[in-house]
Amino acid sequence: MGEARQVCLRALELAGTPADHAATQTDLLLEAELRGRASHGLLRLPRIIERIRNGVADPKTRGAAVWRSPAFLDMDGERGLGPVIALAALAQIRERTRETGIAVAAVSNNNHIGMLALYAEQAAREGQILLALSTSEALVHPWGGRHALIGTNPIAIGVPTEDEPFVLDMATSQVAMGKIHDYANHGRPLEPGWALDANGNPTTDAVAAKTGALAPFGEAKGYALGLAFEVLVASLTASALGTEVKGTLDSSAACNKGDVFIAIEAGSGAIASRITRYLDDIRACPALLPGRPVAVPGDRARAERRQRLDTGIELADEVWRRIRDLAQCAA
Amino acid sequence: MGEARQVCLRALELAGTPADHAATQTDLLLEAELRGRASHGLLRLPRIIERIRNGVADPKTRGAAVWRSPAFLDMDGERGLGPVIALAALAQIRERTRETGIAVAAVSNNNHIGMLALYAEQAAREGQILLALSTSEALVHPWGGRHALIGTNPIAIGVPTEDEPFVLDMATSQVAMGKIHDYANHGRPLEPGWALDANGNPTTDAVAAKTGALAPFGEAKGYALGLAFEVLVASLTASALGTEVKGTLDSSAACNKGDVFIAIEAGSGAIASRITRYLDDIRACPALLPGRPVAVPGDRARAERRQRLDTGIELADEVWRRIRDLAQCAA
Repeated sequence: MGEARQVCLRALELAGTPADHAATQTDLLLEAELRGRASHGLLRLPRIIERIRNGVADPKTRGAAVWRSPAFLDMDGERGLGPVIALAALAQIRERTRETGIAVAAVSNNNHIGMLALYAEQAAREGQILLALSTSEALVHPWGGRHALIGTNPIAIGVPTEDEPFVLDMATSQVAMGKIHDYANHGRPLEPGWALDANGNPTTDAVAAKTGALAPFGEAKGYALGLAFEVLVASLTASALGTEVKGTLDSSAACNKGDVFIAIEAGSGAIASRITRYLDDIRACPALLPGRPVAVPGDRARAERRQRLDTGIELADEVWRRIRDLAQCAA
Repeated sequence: MGEARQVCLRALELAGTPADHAATQTDLLLEAELRGRASHGLLRLPRIIERIRNGVADPKTRGAAVWRSPAFLDMDGERGLGPVIALAALAQIRERTRETGIAVAAVSNNNHIGMLALYAEQAAREGQILLALSTSEALVHPWGGRHALIGTNPIAIGVPTEDEPFVLDMATSQVAMGKIHDYANHGRPLEPGWALDANGNPTTDAVAAKTGALAPFGEAKGYALGLAFEVLVASLTASALGTEVKGTLDSSAACNKGDVFIAIEAGSGAIASRITRYLDDIRACPALLPGRPVAVPGDRARAERRQRLDTGIELADEVWRRIRDLAQCAA
């Protein structure tokens, strides 16, 4: 993994990224790889570099943060690198939350911030609850509707416990568009209910679904949540809405989605200990299916991380080749 | 409806409730009736009065609120009436949010606060986003588990727009336990996937499901969210967790769940106007099924309210008889 890191750093620095920002961006992508989330891993680096070269990502800025009020931070990302801006905003609200008990950062004009779980986990290790919301390109249809009008709008929630933090990180689509592409590449049929085609009709044809719409998770309720996150984030960040959102799936459009972070001082001591015991009770719940124990959000990612720290990460040949090209490595 | 209100007020006052608190509690239940949510309506009044008589609800207190830090309100509900305490906490964080941009109330030791949408709608009309979370008795099984370990943990989100607020209010169970009881009363089979029996096996027998467990909505993702809300609320309010939660379904146990309200100053002007247009685009999305237009959360409740303001509310005979008995009305 050390070699992959060096190559990524060089690729970013060749594109004009200061060394500390290159490290922040690279380490975020590597942490996603370690947790088994290749969709949020090094695969994303070539697009990030294309966006720098196309002038829609500025690798040097740390954004312009202004306290709109004592516990409300407005962060203009100034087209910066997603995690560089996100971490700058989070550092400010973390300190403020220690005084005020709660604080919010409304981040606009920022590039893709990657796997939200990482921010939630970091905050929880610092004794704070974090709610993280991002909007994204409209890929999801309203429940009962035919066309994609809502982002896959992920949410992450981190809560400190007595030991490892509770970390939830999920999109509000039933499946990721990356999964649809993966099924299309392998010629596999989708499960019914995952997607509509471009005409708004239900399909199990993965190729047809690529130009169609993803189902929200959880039917009407999941749709309602994803829509709530879309309007909540827009209200706080003045970001774009629905089909006007651009810049996380392409290399040339300015990124106009929004990110919202809410940090809250968490309970510690007795309640943290009770939460740990409660989560152990959840894990110990008799399983409906033999061999399929009940999982607590965050457990699997932690197990994957431990394993990959031993075995290393596996990259698709094509991804590794492209990153080496960007770092101008000899073949 | 004027008559129902007078009878409810008298019943509460006979149990020792001050007139203003009786009005707050009654009007909250009536607003749920108006919105077609009978499960959160007058049906609940007899239990509230029993709880007062049993000493686990104190109709006189407004709770003891302390600012733990400038934007974090600790509210000890002192066993007060749910909406009396909730509205007292909300009034304090609403004012504080005007200064600080965001504030949170962590409410413990409070009785059932009723339909969360009402609080979210009120906040949104005041120009604030509200996130409202409550925990509740463990009725929901973890995804892949056999026993009920998680509350039905509802969430409400209110977001101001240019006209009517966006208001989401949903439990994190697939269906409400009230619906299971209703199916049992009518001898109707449940849909597959709604519930487990007392042994943790899937069942469509509504009577068997009454002593079993409800499914979370949205499979693994909905389970993860409901669990996140359980630990988040406990962390902030030091409330009970899982099967230790009591007092919203019975008449004799102290209520030890928690309520959390997060208020945030919302965007206004251009972004409120864009949110309104976006929600209109959602409503106009071509429908998958003829005659089943896409709905935006809050729309149906508003339509039901308008209609019932004309036609009046309909109460089950048994509910009306019990409330009249409690008000010592002549037969």
